[in-house]
Amino acid sequence: MPRYFEDISVGDTESFGAYTVTREEIIEFARQYDPQPFHVDSEAAAQSPFGGLVASGWHTAAMTMRVLVDGFLAESESRGALGVDELRWYDPVRPGDTLTAETEVIATEPWDDNYGKVEVRVETLVESDVVCSMIGLILFAKREV
Amino acid sequence: MPRYFEDISVGDTESFGAYTVTREEIIEFARQYDPQPFHVDSEAAAQSPFGGLVASGWHTAAMTMRVLVDGFLAESESRGALGVDELRWYDPVRPGDTLTAETEVIATEPWDDNYGKVEVRVETLVESDVVCSMIGLILFAKREV
Repeated sequence: MPRYFEDISVGDTESFGAYTVTREEIIEFARQYDPQPFHVDSEAAAQSPFGGLVASGWHTAAMTMRVLVDGFLAESESRGALGVDELRWYDPVRPGDTLTAETEVIATEPWDDNYGKVEVRVETLVESDVVCSMIGLILFAKREV
Repeated sequence: MPRYFEDISVGDTESFGAYTVTREEIIEFARQYDPQPFHVDSEAAAQSPFGGLVASGWHTAAMTMRVLVDGFLAESESRGALGVDELRWYDPVRPGDTLTAETEVIATEPWDDNYGKVEVRVETLVESDVVCSMIGLILFAKREV
């Protein structure tokens, strides 16, 4: 059953995942969107402060989105996001890492006659290590009455 | 000549680009990272509030990053970003759109002995329409003395 704005409450928490990233995918994403040496070149990455190849932060955010779409948004009446606050990258994501996501609804408010806005804190984890966090501002359709 | 922390000042503005996105790339990115109907299915997108296929917001952010890496970061001593504040998606990006980026340095401060933190407001434009904006928090190496 799809999830509407009225089905979402402050304090709701859920866990989603998982997504395992390969060296090839890290390089492919970064060659297209973020071709800095520590994302595309294993030898240069080994000499960098990261000590090895790491995923672009935008790639980590995109993988987190995939986990959320599969687990949270696909069966909902989401109408897209207004934006994201406080996106932070704490630790790099490396080849072979498996990402999961945890969500907590921190605010809800009516937006207009048709939609409501939901603020969701999202944490991206590799095992128990939080590698990325953000607050998503998502519009959900109100239930038709 | 690479750009170090000391070479960056509040008020600096620059323009970068361009990046033209195709229908195929919008669908390919979204199938992997954001498979919502209005990003991957032209017919479903036509029936959505967007009225047609639109790029994932994360795809727009990633394309903006590519424009910035090519124009701003490749020739700098950037050491990666701590995060992003106030990421907002105002208008959808559609097949055939060409993105450019405008940056303004809004704050700089020393981080530690080796790095300085720079806050950069980034606007992503399609022609004169701002489709996305964000504030990036980027670490740059200090010049070796």
